[in-house]
Formats: sequence, C-alpha cells, structure tokens
Amino acid sequence: MRNKRTVRIGDRVIGGNEPVLIQSMTNTDTADVDATVSQILSLEEAGCEIIRVAAYDVRSACAIEGIKERIHIPLVADVHFDADIAIAAIEHGADKVRINPGNIGSEANVRRVADAAKMHHVPIRVGANSGSLDSKYQGMDMADALYESALGNIRMLENAGFHDIVVALKSSDVRESIRAYRKMDASFDYPLHVGVTEAGDFEQSIVKSSIGIGGLLADDIGDTIRVSVTGDPILEIKAAKDILRFSGVRSFGPEIISCPTCARTEIDLIGLTGKVKELVKDIDRDIRIAVMGCIVNGPGEARNADIGIAGGKGEGLIFKKGIPVIKVREEELFDTFREYLKEYLSE
Amino acid sequence: MRNKRTVRIGDRVIGGNEPVLIQSMTNTDTADVDATVSQILSLEEAGCEIIRVAAYDVRSACAIEGIKERIHIPLVADVHFDADIAIAAIEHGADKVRINPGNIGSEANVRRVADAAKMHHVPIRVGANSGSLDSKYQGMDMADALYESALGNIRMLENAGFHDIVVALKSSDVRESIRAYRKMDASFDYPLHVGVTEAGDFEQSIVKSSIGIGGLLADDIGDTIRVSVTGDPILEIKAAKDILRFSGVRSFGPEIISCPTCARTEIDLIGLTGKVKELVKDIDRDIRIAVMGCIVNGPGEARNADIGIAGGKGEGLIFKKGIPVIKVREEELFDTFREYLKEYLSE
Repeated sequence: MRNKRTVRIGDRVIGGNEPVLIQSMTNTDTADVDATVSQILSLEEAGCEIIRVAAYDVRSACAIEGIKERIHIPLVADVHFDADIAIAAIEHGADKVRINPGNIGSEANVRRVADAAKMHHVPIRVGANSGSLDSKYQGMDMADALYESALGNIRMLENAGFHDIVVALKSSDVRESIRAYRKMDASFDYPLHVGVTEAGDFEQSIVKSSIGIGGLLADDIGDTIRVSVTGDPILEIKAAKDILRFSGVRSFGPEIISCPTCARTEIDLIGLTGKVKELVKDIDRDIRIAVMGCIVNGPGEARNADIGIAGGKGEGLIFKKGIPVIKVREEELFDTFREYLKEYLSE
Repeated sequence: MRNKRTVRIGDRVIGGNEPVLIQSMTNTDTADVDATVSQILSLEEAGCEIIRVAAYDVRSACAIEGIKERIHIPLVADVHFDADIAIAAIEHGADKVRINPGNIGSEANVRRVADAAKMHHVPIRVGANSGSLDSKYQGMDMADALYESALGNIRMLENAGFHDIVVALKSSDVRESIRAYRKMDASFDYPLHVGVTEAGDFEQSIVKSSIGIGGLLADDIGDTIRVSVTGDPILEIKAAKDILRFSGVRSFGPEIISCPTCARTEIDLIGLTGKVKELVKDIDRDIRIAVMGCIVNGPGEARNADIGIAGGKGEGLIFKKGIPVIKVREEELFDTFREYLKEYLSE
C-alpha cells in the first residue's frame, strides 16, 4: 500500500491512495500557444492526465497563461537553470513547477521559487536526472548521487517551511532508477513521480520503462508516471496505460490472457486471439478474458477469467464466470464467444 | 549477485554466475521432425539458447531423438499428465524435462521420472503454472499456491535423492509471478526459470514480460527466461534480449540513450536518432551511444556514453569517451558522428 502525503496539482490530487496518474510532456515550442494547445488536446484525448511543458525562458513561461485557458488537465512547468523562469511560470498559472537540483543554483534561488509557490499554492517537483547532476557527485554511485542531489533540494524547501513536494530521480539506467526510487520511497513520504529518462525510441522505451516504472509500481512505489519516448508523445500514453494495467495498479478495459501456442494447440489460436482483441478493443469494462489453446492450462485460466475459451481438437469450450457453458466446433467458436460476451456485458 | 547451484542442460550450464539464458518453445507439431527442426534452426539464428518442445504423447517424445541430431542447442521436453511420456523423452535424448506439479500425479510418478533423469544425467524443471494448479489450492493466494505446488514436487525429488532441479512459478498475473519467484528465490538455491505465462500477443506481452521478468532480473533473480508471446516464437527472442539488456544482466550490442524531445529541442532529434539506430544495428560491440537534444541533460548523458551527440541551436557537439571533440552544424552532424564512431570502433 502506498502511503505518501497527498499533493494537489490543479484539480487533481496525487499521493495517498489516489490513482497513479499519467503524465506526458509536449515537444512543441511552448511559446507557440496554438501548437502547444493542439498537442495537449490530443494527449488529453489519448488519456494524458497531467501535462508538462518546458518553460525555457520567461516568454515561454508567460505563455502558460494562454495555454491553461484552453486545456482541461493540470499543467507542470519544467524549468532549468533560472529561478526567475520558475517564478514567472507560477505567476502565469502553472499548477506545479519542476526544478532540477543539478542546475537551479543557490539555496537563495530555491527559496525564492518556494516562496512564490507557497503564495500560489503550487507544489514543486524536485527532479534529479542522471544527465544533469551537479559535478560534485562525479564518481559517486549514480543511485546515491540522484538521491543526494534531490535530498539537498528537499532540505532547502523544508527549511523554507515548504512541504508541498513531489520527487523524481530519473536515470537512463534502469537498475539505478529502481535503486534510487526505493531509497527515496523508504526515506520520505513525498509522492514520487516515476520514470526512466532518455529511454530511447518506442521499441526500446517500452522495455526500459516497463522494467523500471512497472517494477516499482508492482511494489506500490510511484504516484505519477511518465514514459519517455523519442517520438510522438501520444506513444507515451498508450505505453503508460499498459504499464499501469499490467503492474496491477489501474485498469483500462479488457485484459486478454492468451497462451503462446505449442505442439498441443489444435485450433488457430493466434487468429482467434487477434479476432477477440479486435472485438473487445472499444469496451471499457475491466473484464478478464482467456483465449487458451489446449487442455493443459486452458480450463484453469478460463476458470480464473470472467469469460474464456479453452480450445481442444477442432473444437472449444466456452466458460463464463468459471463455469463451462457450451462446447462448439472451431468454426463456430468466435461467433458463439461473441454472443456469450454480449450476454455477459449486458448482465 | 545470483548464487544458485549450477545445473547442466546439454552443453550449457545455468545458475552460479553463468549468463542468464534465453529459452523459447516451438509451436510446430513435435512429431513432425522436419517442421520442428526448421523452426528451431530459425530460433537458434535469432538467438535462442535453449529450446522447449511439447512432448504430448509417447510418439512425440520419441521424435526428440531425430530433432536433437539436427539442432545445436539444448532441448527441453515439456510434459503434462503422464510420467511415461517424460521417461520416453529422457530416453530419447531430451537435455532437460519439465514436469508440472499440478498434473503429473502421484509421488510414485515423480519418483519414476526422477530415477530415469538421474540415470541419464538430465535435470528436471518443476514448472508450476497458474492455469493448471491442483484443485486443492483453490481459494489460496495465487503466489503461495504456486510456491506450495512447486514445493511439493521439490520435496518429492529431494526425497528421491534428486537435486538437479530447476524451478518455475508462472502466473498470468505479473504481481503474483513476482511474489512467487521472490519467495522461491529466498528459500532455495535451485536455479529459476522465469516467465509470465499466457502473456498475450506481442504488444501486451512485451509490457507484462518486461515488468515481470525484467523486474526480477533487475534484482538478480532468474537463471533462464522465456517471454511468452501468442504469435511467432521468433518475437520471443527479440523481446528476451531487450529484457536481459535493459534489466542490466547481459549485453547485446549498442545501447542508444536518446531524449524524448521537448520545447528546448532545436534539432531534428527524432530523425537523427532513427538514423543512428539504423547505422549501429549490425554492430555487435557493447557501446553506449547518447543522442540528446539540448544542453539540459545532453552534455551529461554524452559524457556518460562512449560516444554521444548533444544538440544545440541548429548545431551539435560530438563527445567521445566523455570529452567534447567537435562542434558542427546540424547538416553535418550525422556524417561527422559516423566518422567518429568508425574511429572509435577501430581503436
């Protein structure tokens, strides 16, 4: 069970037992309000729940005001190097501001950002990153360096009486990320934003992010997540949903349990699984569907599922809520399954 | 550090500090020797290191002898329900036999398989699966049930003086798999074959398997792995390599660290990353390449990489072993990188 303190970001709350939220980041020019709003609306449509934009100068930080008027999810300003940009972002409506302990500069800078954030009831994310650690951590174990780097900023914020904190400790190395997050999770009750940074293109990132983010979520570590993909940010949302779903922390519609086929399979299971997947893709109920090829694990998985098919020799058995309901020839299997699924969903 | 006892499977050894090996399973009819050999040779070519075939009756178990003559990797016979099939597989050259505690039957059956295995110096994998647990575990927590089910067979084998054991505890639920493996890892020193069972098609399995298998590997749990995919088993090998690589247990050629791009990116990073990926895809050296879009994390990641690009405004800096070597215009960035990469690889 997660037991972090709760932090409000716009109209959403993270931490506590709140759902783990999906975050993404725009790659349009933030100062180009139309382009940025357009990308954010697409991301909202795909399921993005918190959006981050880079505020790379004061002008782009001020653009947040116009962006906020036209979007429906909380916005986080991502700031590096310059406390004045962070303050401008806060004053122009950012719902959260992310500063980087490796490059935001002095304690005085952190305090100035904290004072502005406190006045506007805006939380601060302390986001350490393996690519931008202060040079004083050179040679240190990376997980420890990420932890220490974030710790320094956390202490500065706490000393300024500021506790509305979210922490991230991202490394491009999965093991280092996991170790850093576990250490932070054990030490503080600030909500954690979890990610593996610079994870590469979709094909690579889906594996790195599933191991790193999903591995932590499966241990109930993480309050918001971001899958980093070199590519269209829409890809990040689909990946984030799958990681949340399969690490067991949230549901997003039907889950299909299907076997890999082997010499025992006597029906066209790969074809059948594809058809079932297509059939259920727009259903938003959280149901578990088994599509299994033979009698070894078929009946067992079908029994554990809400509705399931267990194939045999040129025929198949349909299960509903653990009970075998009908045995039909392979040719009729899909159509019969569709009828029983319809019935199940209408019950 | 992994510290399991070592187990020999044909000409490979698993456990100890041996590399974690990639396993897959044929979906041809095992009794069709030509088709099965053809699929195994394709899987070998893709990088499969241990192959499993279903021995579903005595005839298919006997076919193993002909298959073994024409392949180059160890072969595991997958047996359910019938000890005689397992014994036939062992007598016909299987390098390992997998039995399922949920369905192999009596202690006498397990002992008969153990005696044959001992005589032929063949290890036994005790493979419990969420879909085929004995009915006596109904209602029990799934991870505990998998553990208890495997434990029963382990004790029977140990009582028969047999210790050449590999254990698998596969659930179609990622969290249950992780919990079951952790418990087994903490209790015994038998090597573990790790997988998430019935993980679905490639798109779904890559996420479930990365979280479940990769999450365990990142904690040094696992001695062989199998990614279960409803589809062509070749897909399992690519996924397995990526999971091994990104969980930090084995290397397979170059790794590309690339950022997700944001409003700060002033070069065509997505295009550049694609070109770099294509350029290095056939290189089999374990090098770390950074392709980064801006000055925030770019120089840092480029410094951590063997060779890296950090983009700026219409230009980029090339790093080699942590040292910036040249700044060039964006148009020349890829060609210059290619030259420096060539030089790096020839050093």
